[in-house]
Amino acid sequence: MNTDRVKVEIITIGDEILIGQIVDTNSAWMATELNKCGFELAQITSIHDDERHIIESLDLALGRADIVLFTGGIGPTNDDITKQTLAKYFDTRLVFDESVLDNIKQLFSNRPNYGLNDLNRSQAMVPENCTVIQNKVGTAPITWFEKDGKVIVSMPGVPYEMKQVMTSEIIPRLQNHYSAPVLIHKTVQVYGYPESALAIKIADWEKELPAYIHLAYLPNSGVVKLRLSGQLDDVLALQFSINQQVDKLSQLLGKAIVAYEDVSISNLVGDLLKSKGLMVATAESCTGGNIAHELTLIPGSSEFFKGSVVAYSNDIKTGVLQVSSTDLENDGAVSKSVVEQMAEGARKLLRSDVSIATSGIAGPSGGTAEKPVGTVWIAVSSEDKTISREFKFGSLREQNIIRATQAALLMLKEIL
Amino acid sequence: MNTDRVKVEIITIGDEILIGQIVDTNSAWMATELNKCGFELAQITSIHDDERHIIESLDLALGRADIVLFTGGIGPTNDDITKQTLAKYFDTRLVFDESVLDNIKQLFSNRPNYGLNDLNRSQAMVPENCTVIQNKVGTAPITWFEKDGKVIVSMPGVPYEMKQVMTSEIIPRLQNHYSAPVLIHKTVQVYGYPESALAIKIADWEKELPAYIHLAYLPNSGVVKLRLSGQLDDVLALQFSINQQVDKLSQLLGKAIVAYEDVSISNLVGDLLKSKGLMVATAESCTGGNIAHELTLIPGSSEFFKGSVVAYSNDIKTGVLQVSSTDLENDGAVSKSVVEQMAEGARKLLRSDVSIATSGIAGPSGGTAEKPVGTVWIAVSSEDKTISREFKFGSLREQNIIRATQAALLMLKEIL
Repeated sequence: MNTDRVKVEIITIGDEILIGQIVDTNSAWMATELNKCGFELAQITSIHDDERHIIESLDLALGRADIVLFTGGIGPTNDDITKQTLAKYFDTRLVFDESVLDNIKQLFSNRPNYGLNDLNRSQAMVPENCTVIQNKVGTAPITWFEKDGKVIVSMPGVPYEMKQVMTSEIIPRLQNHYSAPVLIHKTVQVYGYPESALAIKIADWEKELPAYIHLAYLPNSGVVKLRLSGQLDDVLALQFSINQQVDKLSQLLGKAIVAYEDVSISNLVGDLLKSKGLMVATAESCTGGNIAHELTLIPGSSEFFKGSVVAYSNDIKTGVLQVSSTDLENDGAVSKSVVEQMAEGARKLLRSDVSIATSGIAGPSGGTAEKPVGTVWIAVSSEDKTISREFKFGSLREQNIIRATQAALLMLKEIL
Repeated sequence: MNTDRVKVEIITIGDEILIGQIVDTNSAWMATELNKCGFELAQITSIHDDERHIIESLDLALGRADIVLFTGGIGPTNDDITKQTLAKYFDTRLVFDESVLDNIKQLFSNRPNYGLNDLNRSQAMVPENCTVIQNKVGTAPITWFEKDGKVIVSMPGVPYEMKQVMTSEIIPRLQNHYSAPVLIHKTVQVYGYPESALAIKIADWEKELPAYIHLAYLPNSGVVKLRLSGQLDDVLALQFSINQQVDKLSQLLGKAIVAYEDVSISNLVGDLLKSKGLMVATAESCTGGNIAHELTLIPGSSEFFKGSVVAYSNDIKTGVLQVSSTDLENDGAVSKSVVEQMAEGARKLLRSDVSIATSGIAGPSGGTAEKPVGTVWIAVSSEDKTISREFKFGSLREQNIIRATQAALLMLKEIL
């Protein structure tokens, strides 16, 4: 499908990704933003700071795509060679650009401890035949080349520098340069089905999707996102058709659909709390503060989030959250009685309207035959009621923390 | 350098990465593990489930590398075509493999709610001329092909499935197949220098590095990792030479070096606490539980982590942590007096030996002229003393949370 969409390729340059020191979060962010604007990503390529390899990758990318976006390899240190390589590729030379130096000076005016140095000055050298875009939040300038109707951009790999320039300069310029077609996405999030069981359940519906709507399954720690992407000249008809398909899906899956948009579960819960004017608190044992962390990543979370007690050791469960030590001794920390008392204790101590509590065995050690690693009790509590449920996740610590966080937020959503 | 190292390429298949729905954490993990074993990653490529593109990418990768590792595109749903494409590429057909079906049956015996379905049965079809490796934790089998002395492997994209089979099967088989050269890495972590200032500071040292030692700068939220990678037939001489270089660096940078190994700061602090038999607690406002989360990601963290109070709202600071309401009113929540009382309050309430407290303006709103977004007060407290410091980070919420977490853990390290 979408053979007529404008195609983009991303090439990341530098050792960091290839030796595994950093995860390439830039490409995911860029892909999301570019897709929203109707551009299609054909390939993402990560290579070393190596002239031959940079040129070979650029040649191949220009053979497949209309736009090539480079990130990285333009820092002040000696291992960065992208600028020189592009100058060579476009058969031009490096020239001094006063406006780039001014921009760097401006940036350094806020950092009295570290003056301008020779390496920074060398960043003001740019290829002669390109458009220079100033970097508002860093020292490396952005360079924009055009060749045979195609666009090649080189920008920094530092995530916030890349995001700033993509949002404010590059995407608007690309939209101006190409008239990207309208692409409509709709995401439905389904909880409680493994991917293959879900595929069987919705097989008939999937078979009857119109050809101009494409379906993707995107599993994500217990939730499967179903993403419908459509493209049609008649945007209203497309919107109508996508809504119709979502309605059918809704009849098919009912309450297993936990969201009709592509937002994180924490954002969904935050919005719901805000709209109801309720404050939440958490009492976390096995999730160790991750529910609080997820909620406080949201800007403005103080409007719905009160605070937490991370009760990792048992004496905090009894001493701070007022869990009965008899119950703790008889039932164990990972139990219905303890997790319910934790939720109630947090709600009262932190004076919130609703609360969440978790207690489980994240692993890798601590499991027993009766309560293996991955066993987690979760409770949610309001003034009216406290409910709890036992979950059996897997054997991987981080995955158990993430899945328990997700399950806890979804349980809270149920009682709101 | 390292032209004689065995070269690997990773090709990820599927829409997920290219539409930005997921971040490619797999490749970073694989790159780290492969590098440790002396393999060199030449390129990482992400492409769609598209036959022509898969074949083209494989051809190009085999032209550059000795080993090609595919991840993804082998799920049970219809959009996955990697298996069929590889069968075609290697000029073979799909045949039924009883052992794969047995493995799937075994996996499903623990999931009574979802029986074996036709899609799972189709996963037991494998290319005829390849080595099949069973997937111990998922339904898609791993296939291993050899051609002209090169190795091509197709494995699942689900992170824990990929990790399980890489660790237990693929890396050992690759080490057996090639005799990978010994590569020694040493990472030194430096805090408090922007990358370019650090480059100037160590320029003379860097110039005199022996040719067989390669240096990489890896900035990471306030810390710059300097990574020395060396390769030499005489392993003892190499080790000696690397140690010598690190000693010189140590004289040059002194206390700015916060670690001599490539571990997270939280792990470093955790190990230090354990070795001293101390328990830590946290009182978190702007970091919202992220310090607790980072510490509890570490297996066995209950040996050094007591718990936390996430005091997001002011009444928790006063009501639970016993911060003076007069001080809170006079100095504001983001102040020396409040953050020190938070640290002391948490240490007493949670009965820990040492504690960390944070209070700041993570943003995007809430800043003032005097205390702009990014202002964070951090305190650490022990029975002997409480110290605090003001930081000015940047304008990005998530980045401020991460940098405050890092700074707080490093401050704790100072008093241990």
